[in-house]
Order: sequence, then structure tokens, then C-alpha cells
Amino acid sequence: MRNTSRPLVTLDGNEAVASIAYQLNEVIAIYPITPSSPMGELADQWAAEGRPNLWGTVPTVIEMQSEGGAAGAVHGALQAGALTTTFTSSQGLLLMIPNMYKIAGELTATVFHVAARSLATHALSIFGDQSDVMATRATGFALLASGSVQEAMDMALIAQAATLESRIPFLHFFDGFRTSHEVMKVEMLTPDDLRAMIDDELVRAHRERALSPDRPFIRGTAQNPDVYFQSREAVNPFYRACPTIVQNVMEKFARVVGRRYHLFDYVGAPDADRVLVLMGSGAEAAHETVEYLLARGEAVGLIKVRLYRPFSVAHLIAALPPTVRVLAVLDRTKEPGSIGEPLYLDVVAAVHEAMADGTAPFATWPRILGGRYGLASKEFTPAMIKGIFDEMKKEHPKTHFTIGIHDDVTHTSLAYDPTFSTEDPQTVRAVFFGLGADGTVSANRNSIKIIGEHTDYFAQGYFVYDSKKAGSVTVSHLRFGPRPIRSSYLIDRATFVACHQFGFLDRMDVLRVAEPGATFLLNSPYGPDEVWDRLPVEVQEQIIEKRLRFFVVDGYRVARQAGLGARINTVLQTCFFALSGVLPRDEAIAAIKDAIRESYGKRGEVVLERNFAAVDAALDALHEVPVPERATGARHRLPPVPPEAPDFVQRVLAKMIAGEGDLLPVSALPVDGTFPTGTARWEKRSLAHEIPIWDPSICIDCAKCALVCPHAAIRMKVYDPGVLEGAPAGFPSKEWKDRDLPGMRMTIQVAPDDCTGCG
Amino acid sequence: MRNTSRPLVTLDGNEAVASIAYQLNEVIAIYPITPSSPMGELADQWAAEGRPNLWGTVPTVIEMQSEGGAAGAVHGALQAGALTTTFTSSQGLLLMIPNMYKIAGELTATVFHVAARSLATHALSIFGDQSDVMATRATGFALLASGSVQEAMDMALIAQAATLESRIPFLHFFDGFRTSHEVMKVEMLTPDDLRAMIDDELVRAHRERALSPDRPFIRGTAQNPDVYFQSREAVNPFYRACPTIVQNVMEKFARVVGRRYHLFDYVGAPDADRVLVLMGSGAEAAHETVEYLLARGEAVGLIKVRLYRPFSVAHLIAALPPTVRVLAVLDRTKEPGSIGEPLYLDVVAAVHEAMADGTAPFATWPRILGGRYGLASKEFTPAMIKGIFDEMKKEHPKTHFTIGIHDDVTHTSLAYDPTFSTEDPQTVRAVFFGLGADGTVSANRNSIKIIGEHTDYFAQGYFVYDSKKAGSVTVSHLRFGPRPIRSSYLIDRATFVACHQFGFLDRMDVLRVAEPGATFLLNSPYGPDEVWDRLPVEVQEQIIEKRLRFFVVDGYRVARQAGLGARINTVLQTCFFALSGVLPRDEAIAAIKDAIRESYGKRGEVVLERNFAAVDAALDALHEVPVPERATGARHRLPPVPPEAPDFVQRVLAKMIAGEGDLLPVSALPVDGTFPTGTARWEKRSLAHEIPIWDPSICIDCAKCALVCPHAAIRMKVYDPGVLEGAPAGFPSKEWKDRDLPGMRMTIQVAPDDCTGCG
Ligand code: SF4
Ligand code: SF4
Repeated sequence: MRNTSRPLVTLDGNEAVASIAYQLNEVIAIYPITPSSPMGELADQWAAEGRPNLWGTVPTVIEMQSEGGAAGAVHGALQAGALTTTFTSSQGLLLMIPNMYKIAGELTATVFHVAARSLATHALSIFGDQSDVMATRATGFALLASGSVQEAMDMALIAQAATLESRIPFLHFFDGFRTSHEVMKVEMLTPDDLRAMIDDELVRAHRERALSPDRPFIRGTAQNPDVYFQSREAVNPFYRACPTIVQNVMEKFARVVGRRYHLFDYVGAPDADRVLVLMGSGAEAAHETVEYLLARGEAVGLIKVRLYRPFSVAHLIAALPPTVRVLAVLDRTKEPGSIGEPLYLDVVAAVHEAMADGTAPFATWPRILGGRYGLASKEFTPAMIKGIFDEMKKEHPKTHFTIGIHDDVTHTSLAYDPTFSTEDPQTVRAVFFGLGADGTVSANRNSIKIIGEHTDYFAQGYFVYDSKKAGSVTVSHLRFGPRPIRSSYLIDRATFVACHQFGFLDRMDVLRVAEPGATFLLNSPYGPDEVWDRLPVEVQEQIIEKRLRFFVVDGYRVARQAGLGARINTVLQTCFFALSGVLPRDEAIAAIKDAIRESYGKRGEVVLERNFAAVDAALDALHEVPVPERATGARHRLPPVPPEAPDFVQRVLAKMIAGEGDLLPVSALPVDGTFPTGTARWEKRSLAHEIPIWDPSICIDCAKCALVCPHAAIRMKVYDPGVLEGAPAGFPSKEWKDRDLPGMRMTIQVAPDDCTGCG
Repeated sequence: MRNTSRPLVTLDGNEAVASIAYQLNEVIAIYPITPSSPMGELADQWAAEGRPNLWGTVPTVIEMQSEGGAAGAVHGALQAGALTTTFTSSQGLLLMIPNMYKIAGELTATVFHVAARSLATHALSIFGDQSDVMATRATGFALLASGSVQEAMDMALIAQAATLESRIPFLHFFDGFRTSHEVMKVEMLTPDDLRAMIDDELVRAHRERALSPDRPFIRGTAQNPDVYFQSREAVNPFYRACPTIVQNVMEKFARVVGRRYHLFDYVGAPDADRVLVLMGSGAEAAHETVEYLLARGEAVGLIKVRLYRPFSVAHLIAALPPTVRVLAVLDRTKEPGSIGEPLYLDVVAAVHEAMADGTAPFATWPRILGGRYGLASKEFTPAMIKGIFDEMKKEHPKTHFTIGIHDDVTHTSLAYDPTFSTEDPQTVRAVFFGLGADGTVSANRNSIKIIGEHTDYFAQGYFVYDSKKAGSVTVSHLRFGPRPIRSSYLIDRATFVACHQFGFLDRMDVLRVAEPGATFLLNSPYGPDEVWDRLPVEVQEQIIEKRLRFFVVDGYRVARQAGLGARINTVLQTCFFALSGVLPRDEAIAAIKDAIRESYGKRGEVVLERNFAAVDAALDALHEVPVPERATGARHRLPPVPPEAPDFVQRVLAKMIAGEGDLLPVSALPVDGTFPTGTARWEKRSLAHEIPIWDPSICIDCAKCALVCPHAAIRMKVYDPGVLEGAPAGFPSKEWKDRDLPGMRMTIQVAPDDCTGCG
């Protein structure tokens, strides 16, 4: 299947899609919204660089003042005959709905690429689910789902070919963050592939439908009751033809590229009695789980929905095994007040139609369950999927269930065994804890690229940021292995764990994700002899219990000595390669140096030399720590909030701060998104590696430091000298020079727990 | 049931709803859009007049710059604790979707009142269907339907009571135009009714949830994957409780007011085998049809859906007769690419759930058909409904059918017998053809009021405007009768037809709607002796064949002589009362005069006297025309377009111009809303009763007349005198005084067929 003429590249879903959409369009109208923004930014950058599209012209990228404007610009450009696209998400997509009805009603070929994201309801969330896409299912757009970076690239092309042929506009979507931001090693489609798939005759036909003074006509009129209804039914043949057109385009794609898709792809036992139906990235985890269970003799299966609209009953029914007894239809959205979520309603209707007209392969109605999962990027794991399959075995299975949460209020949630895992033992699974600013993520992106390029391994990277942006924790999840990676979920069974900030050990359970026997790399100011006693006892216990191999490197010292200041990424990347063994050590070092040359080449020889020095010094500074038989520490991990915090903070926010918000049951959360105020003061992050110290001797009372600290960690007080009585020795203060407050003293202090060390 | 303490009033759906919403709110944020605008305008007017709401304060009415702004203002005012509403339709509602998700997610009590309207797709349409409402079904709003003016008033109150108790925001909708603009005699809910229904404790609770500096909290935060999903499930108890709350509110309403509603109201045989399911005004026509068929022994029934969201499976199933064999679920929307429309999908799912959990009253699956009707105010008549019931009897009934059109492309449409009628023989059915500017509609509104107030008759008025606004035809449909009127469709079997413009007879088939034996009143410049020979032969034939009683009055002469200029409404209204016999003649005349006093009293005695004189003179000028045995005319009705018009104009536009667009099959209409340009020139309306004549002797060449004519009917030409050779005698022209074009002549002409006589 692998066609060696196609380059293998590592990129994320946004780039995968943008690279295709850019080549296939002439006008790109955008307004940035997370997590789709990178598509627009890339297109903008490429256009600025003068990169041509497939026809040799540079697309016009227009940024509007809202998504409503972007949709209007798209509609206008389409009416002028240009191949036109847009990229959006969430509320942005909602603002496009009015124009989408018109674009579809006018049978206009276009593809909107959507990084699917949850909608603002009780709270906003920038994370991924399919609520936004589902909100557009009445517009008449075709909806085409992809579930991985490779699929997103492929479907971007398939959608464009299909829209030109069918005249139905397409919304191509993939899960926000999970696919849009997941980095994967994929096969890059070539311009020749695109040319083979896009029929120039159809492009010409699209142009000829344009409004033009030469062939005048009128479109977008007002119609009265006499003819509107008939006109609305005039589109029927186009919608009826569309599924077959898409399937034919998929067949052609298989001939050209080698990967074969179907409107509904079935994976599983030919005689499965339990079958899941879902779409998007969750289908990858389900695929992995089904294969695992199949190998263990369970008669299970999975339908991956590709073309959700127009919904082809015939294709779905044909894809189902005739033996199916129970279907669980999983929606990544919630529509309160509906009997069930949209995909569920559709599958029920599809089975109803097939039963009614006698085309169903089964004689009796299968049981059809509906379930919700993965809202706002909630994890969807093989353990949960196994839980669903187990539920489907029961005589009275739950329907309209939720999975992945604990619903102690309306008891919708299914129980599951969280220890169930389908991770491939041959896959290297590495988790890195870093700070937003410490370069961990970019070093990891780089490592994926190196491994992708230097090995036949499949490679995947996913990066979890908490949404507090600068100064916050980043967790990188990297997988490398000889077999295709469908694990569209975080690693909780890591073979390698790196903690790039020593302070994290006090505040979070870094080793929870380590599997027994894993390697643990700690960036530590303390050497191998000293570090053990500096660990919280919980960390010691985990290292012992899980029989981890434990390594330290003093990344900050090595970086500093190499002249790199606090930039520890090169040091820790080198140690990862040294320990993980994904590549032979020498090859890895050479590759890291190549990568350094690529990244920093422009900054001159000195910077290069410093980085090379850091690489070499890193290996010398890397030490294994002998692990004692017993935990000896007296120090405990810090509680996330002080014990004097109020009840709600203790019960709810403390869990969220500790990274255990997933464990909060439904009853813990407010019903309407209402939270108490002033809770930030209970969240002491203690992130700073270095904090500023006030020097009264050079202070000119300007107060700019307090103003400028983005975390309000620098506080200034002017006070009566009397209060200094009883101050600790050496408590710094200075005279306050102010005519209005004569004789006062002033002190500036930094709150160490609030300071992030952002400098 | 009739509580005499409540006044009976005649008003339209918009006013019925606005009158309740106004009393129950403190902030009303609006942006006008047809057909909901009158609600906002009324509220604005009442606030300007200082009319208080139920709590004695005058609501604040804010007009924003778009519906997006209105929704934002609503959200803001709600968060500040104000009882807040808005009125909208169509695209306006689409722009509110983002805020609707938030308002629902925050469990905020509010009611949006929506005059449901079609969406702009291949063309825009200002007319009614439920596409807009259906586009919001994912937002988490409750959706409550009403099907008549009385119901719209009742549900406006029920929705407000239910939202306060349930905390689920409500969207209350009623069909645009059919209900929003239908005038009905209804029982007005009193402030006491409102007080009995609205619990002040719940209002207080609503206020206490407001954001306020006194009790600070935060709402509308950003949430991460850890807690968003759980929070989203925290609303479940509210949605589960909502249907019962609404039913309880309906029970309370029944106790207070006397009218009883259910979430799903069943009408029909307890042992019906065929049952329709639908919502909105179409359910009234279906109710009428079911009663008619029941009386003739057919085992049919009807479910009127009131609470569409949250959808209560249990309530629907309980409302269905256990004998049902076939269900036809009718949607007034179209969602291309879906298996079926939303209500259909929901009913299928509801039956599925009931079958799966064993709560269904039937042992085997009923056949469930889906159908579309009434898009953009397409008529939905008892004949069509009978057609659906007939289809349901077949062994292989069509599903995903359309009704009311002829689909010769994808053959979705059901055939039906258009002559089937359920009109009550005791109901007076009067149809009036007038011009937009000639006062026919306001006179008819007035007649309904008079009849409503002076008799126990039920009364209904509906007014069809073509969307060419000024100078266009209006058709008024009035029903009066001793039994409740559920006829939510136009009259095509009139007992009385009035044609207020003689010229119409040449251009449209005015008497198509007359039933045999009906009365025909013609405003005619020709007297009873002369008029017959002036009629097109088609009109003569209809009068003879249908054995019509034929009356003429020279309304323009009577009006002119009474000093009313061209205002013929009083004259023709008087003749209607004289001929229809709905009221005794004297009583009618007194009532007309009362009405005149009310309307024109402020304009002084002279105006009153002139109108009174017109009333008295009208009766003298009214003459019956003896009808000959045979049609004798040689003159034919004019073709709608000249024979030299191009093919598309002949085939399609001619039918639309002739008022026969309903008969155009699907194949006649463009698939994507694309029409040829320049077709207006084929549409000669010949509307003008009087046209201007150019007088060259006073012309100063200013050309303002040509500029100012809104119909471009005045054309000015400057030309070489040579072309005047061979001009008809008396062809007017004058010297053109222009240094640049010396020696030229100029003529100004009016195109009589384009002039509308607008003056
Ligand atoms: S380093 Fe600390 S004190 Fe300085 S600006 Fe950053 S957070 Fe504030
Ligand atoms: S009366 Fe006729 S000519 Fe005069 S402004 Fe009206 S349409 Fe134009």
C-alpha cells in the first residue's frame, strides 16, 4: 500500500488539512478561532511567501472581522466563480449558519474545514467535541468526518473532489485538538495526487455558474408561497446522488493513493453481535479496542461514519453485520431536551427505514443504545470503550448513557475498568512534564520529526496545555512504534516519564502515568546521591512500587554552562534519546545536531556551538539514581490548596488544581456554570524557578514593577514605620518620599507562590 | 368553558402574543424582521404610551442593530435579573443561536416568541414554515408550538410560567403569517389570569440568580476537559423535570382559564389506525379534517405536538391510540441530506424507545411515514390531509413524501383530490380582491371586528399580499360562523366574492374561489345594464355556470361624490354587509358608522359626514345585475405575458404572474435559484385606475417626474424632430432647450401597463 513516491512527513491535523485546502483554492476567507486558527495562519503565511496553488496562482487570503464576515466573503467569492474555502470552529461556525443555508440552497461547490469544538453553554471551552458541527446539520451542507491526521488530509481532498462533482457544499470536520493539534507521521499527498483527483472540467463548470456581467442572470431572489416549496424540492436529485459520488471519489482515491475509505467503514468480526457507531477521532480508539477484543475472541465491531450528511441509509445498512444484536451509537455532543443525540436519532431512523422496506439484513430489531462521550476533549479510552461493549452484553443495558465521567445525579454514566489497556507493548510511550515557556513542547515536536524521519516507526505526539497559558504546565504525550498508532487518547501507561521541572513533584502526581518498569528522567538540581532524599515520599513510593529506572540530569546547570541560559530543551531531549533507545545513540545525537542546525542555523555559529556543547554535556551529566528498597522521605506532596480554604474550594477547585478534575462527579459541579469568586487566591502555583528580589538601594519608587508583573505577584505597600516593630531582622524597607505622606516607609515584596518566574 | 368575565377581542397572532409578553417582561430587546416585527412595534408603542406591565412598571424596549445584538442584550438583561424577552423570525433567529446555547446552558428563564418563517436557501422567503425554529433545536431551549391566535396567546403565558419554574428557556413559536397575521376573535386573558399563573416567588428566584456586586459570583467561565462534560450533565434533572412542569402549568391554566392543553393533544377516534403527527397551524386544518372524517366513520386521529423540546417520549406514547397502525409525521421544514425531517426522526426514536423498553401500547411497530408540507406558507388544506390519510391506507405507502406540490422530478409528492372540502356550510366565507392602497384590507379588518363584537359568531381574517408591496393585489379571506374556525388555509370555496378593482377581471381568475350559488360583488364603473358586456367571456361563463348572484356598485363614483376621493373602502364595506346578511342591515349600518366614528373621529366632523354619506349612498348605488342564460362576450381575459415572451417566461413566470405558480411542477423551477434577468418587462400589471397625462405646455424640462416615479413608468425621450414624421396626429412633443443638443424635440410618456396609478 505504501507508495514510496510520497514523502513521509510529521505534521498536525491543521497543517495536514491546510496544505491540501491551500492548493485547491483561490480565495480563503478566515477569522481565527481556536483550535482552527493554525489553518488560517498557515494559509496566510504561505500566501505571503507566494506559494502557488495547484493551478499556479497564489490564493487570496482575506481576514474578515468575524466569522459572519468570513462566511459572507466565502459566499461572495463563490458567486464570483472562485474556488473558495474557510477554516473555523465552534461559535465561529455558528455565525456562518445563515450563509451556509444560502450556499447549500444555491448548490455551490465549496469545502469548509472545521476543527470541531464544543460550544459555549454553561461555560465556554476551547476543546474538542462535535457540538458545533451538529448545529449545522440542517443547513444542507454535506458533513464529512475524519478521525486522524492522515484521514484529515485525505478527506480534505476527497471533500473537494466530491463537492465539485455533486455541487453540494461540504463541511469537512475533525476533532479539535485531538486531531487538529496531534502531530503524526503521515504520507503527504502530492500535487500529482491532487491533479488526479480534481477534474478540471468540474472546476470550469463551477466557474461557469458564476454571476458575471457577460452572461447575466439573477440568483438569491425572494420567493412567495407559490414556488418556494417546489424550488426547494428541486435539489433532491443532487442530494440523492451525493453519497454515491462520494463513494466513487473514495474509490478513485484508493486507486490513486492506495488508502480505501467507505461512507461507513466497518471494522470487526463478520459475525459481530455488538457494534459501535461513531465518527471522528474516537473511532480510532474504538478501532484499536475492537482489534484487541477480536484477538481475544469477542464478537464485536465498529462502524466509522465518514459521510454523515447526506446520510445514506442503504450504505449504513449494507455495512452492518447481519448478526448485530446491539448497536451503541456514540455522539460527541449533547443536545439537552432531545430524545437522544443526532447520530443516535439517525441510526434509529436508518434501521427503522430498512426494517420497514425489508432491506435490513436482520430479522428482528437490534437493540440500539445512545451514548455521549468526549465532550470538550474529555478522554475517550479503550477502557471506556470496553465498558460500553460490556454494557451491551447486559440484558437491560443503559441507554442515553454517558461514558468517561461519574454521573451521580441522573446516573447516566457507565462504569468501566480504568485499568483496561490496549497499548501495544512494542510502542514506546513517553510523557514529558514541562513548563509552557521551557521549550519542552518544541523539543518534543522535534523529537517526533527526528524519529519519523530516521526510522520506519509510526509516530504520534499530543500536547496538553492547561488553558492558563504562559507559565503553565505542558504535558507531552509521544508514541513511537512499529505498528500504526490509533491511540487517540492520552498516555496513562508510559514507558518513559520525564519531569522537566523539579518543583512539579511537590504539586502533581507525575508518576501516575508511569507503567511498571518505566524509565523516569528528572531534571534535578540535586545529583544522583542527593536527590532521593529531596523527593516527596509519595514519589519515592511510586518509584519503588513501580520498579522504575530513575535518572537525573541538572538541565539548568548544563544549559547555563553551555551558554544557553535557562533553555533546557536541548539537554533534556538528548537525555530522552539516550534513555529511550528509539534510535541508536550516535544516530540520535547526529540527528539532534542536524535539527539544531535547522532551527538555529540562522542565528550564527555561536548559538549552534552552544547547543552542540549542551548535547555533549547532557550525556555526561545524565546519571542513574540507585533506588533504595524503601521510601524514607518525611516530606509529603503539598496539598493543592491550604486547609483553611472554603468548602467549595476544597471539594472542587482543589481537585481541578491537582489535575484530578476528571474525577469530580456531576454533583460536584454547579448546574448553571455559576462559581464563587475570588478563588484564584487559593491556587498557589509555586512555578517559579527563579524569583525577583527587591533591592531598596536602587529603587526609585516608580512602582512600575508592580504594574508590569502579569501575575500580580509583586506587591507594594506604604506604611507607618511603627508597624515595622517586630519585623524579622533584615526585612527590607525604604523611606517613602511623598509630600502627602511624610515619614512613611515602603516595601516591595514578591509572593513566591504566585510568581511564575516569567522574568 | 366560556368565562364571560374575559373580553372577546379580534386581533392577530402577533398582537395576541405581544400583549401577553409585554405584561410579563421588564426588558424587551428587539430587531425587526418579518413576520415578527409587529410584536416589537406594538411593544415599542405601548412602552412609548407608558403602558405598565403586570408589576406596574413600563418595560424597557431596546432596538439593537441586529438580532445578534438583540440576543446579546437579552442575555445581558437576564444576567442582571430582569424578566426579558425578544421577538424574531428566520435569519434573525439564526443570529441568536450562539447566545441561545449560553442562555440555556446557564439555565436562565426567558421566553423568545418566534413567528416561524422559512430560511433563505435558494431564495429568501418572508413566508411561514418552521425551518428557523428547527435550526435551534440543539440549543437546549424548550420549544413550544401554538397553532392558532388563541393558542398563541395562551402558550405565551404558559411558556412564561413554565420557564420560571423549570429554569429552561423557552422558544414559543407559531406559524409566520398564518398565525402571526391571522385575525381571530379570541378570548383575552386578563391581568388576573396572568397573576394567577405567574408565581411571584419564582420571579424573585429569577432575580436572585442575577449577577450583582452584593452577592458576587462568576458565570460564563472557561472550562477545560476535566470538568466541562460533568457540568454539561448537571443540567439533566432540569430537562427531565421540564415536561411535567409544562403539563402541570397547562393543568393550572385549564383551572384558571378553562382551556385544556397537553404536551401532545390527541384528537380522533380512540381506535384510530391512522394518525397524523404535526405542530403549528397545520394541526388546526388537520383537526378540522379529522373531525370531518370521523363523522364519516373513518378511524383516523391526530397528535398536535405542543412541547417539542424537551421531547417527552412517555407523553407522546401515552397520547397515541394503541390501535395505531400507520403514523404520518409531518414537518414544515426541509433538511436536505437528512434521512427525514426532525419531527419524523423524533417520533421514530420515541416509538423505538417505547418498543425497546416495553412501554408501547402496540405489540408491533406501526408504520411511520415522514412528510413535508407547507414550506414558505404553501397551502395545507383538508384536501391534502385527506390525501395523506388515503396514502396511509395503501399497502406500500410513500414515505418522505411531499404534499401540496407536484414533484415530477423525484416523485415525492402525493396525489390528492383538490375538490375535497371540509368547510362548514354554516360559515360565511368571503374573499375580497383589492389593491394594496385602496383600503380593502383595513375595511375587512374592521368588518371582522364589527362582526366579532356584534354577534356570537367566530370570526377569522387572513390577508394575502403579493410581495410587490405598494400597488399590488391584496386578497382578503374572511370567515364567520357559529362554530369554532380551525380552517388555517385560504378560502377556495367562497360564499361571497368581492372584486374591488374592475381591471382585475382582465388579468386574474377572481371567480375561481366562488362556490356555486355564491354572491359576487363588483366595483364597476359600468352600471347594471352595461356591465355584462364589459366582462371577459371567462367571467361571464363562470357567473352563469356557478349560478352566482351578481351585484355592482360604482364605488369610485360614490366615494368621489361623497367627497372621499378615491377611498372606496367604506362604500364596499357597506355593500358587503348589505349582501352577506351576517348582521341585520340596520345593525350593520349603525356598526359601520360607529367604526367610522372610531377611525376618523379625530379628523373632524367633515370627514365623518363624508363617510356617513358614502355609507348611505352605497346602498342606493348597489344593484343586482340580471344574469343572462348564455355568455355572449367576445373579449377574453388577457394572457399574463405577451406571446412573444421567451420560453422560460411563458412556462414559468407567466404562471406566477397569473397567480397560478402553485401549479408549477418541481421540474419547472431552477435547481439552484438561478433565474434569467430582465423578465420584469414581460409583466405588465395594468393596475392603474387613473394614469398621469403629460401637459407639454406647462413642462419646464426638469425631468423630475421620470425620476420620481417608483415604477419607472414615466419615460422621457429627446430626439431628432425627423423621427416625428409619421407620428400619430396629436402626438405631444415640445422643443428641447439645451445648448448642447440644439433643435431637438422632447416627449414624456407614461407606460400605461407599468403605471400603478400610485399618484
Ligand atoms: S517573574 Fe514573577 S514577579 Fe516577575 S513579572 Fe513574572 S510573575 Fe511577576
Ligand atoms: S402614478 Fe404611475 S406614473 Fe405616476 S408615479 Fe405612480 S406609477 Fe409612476
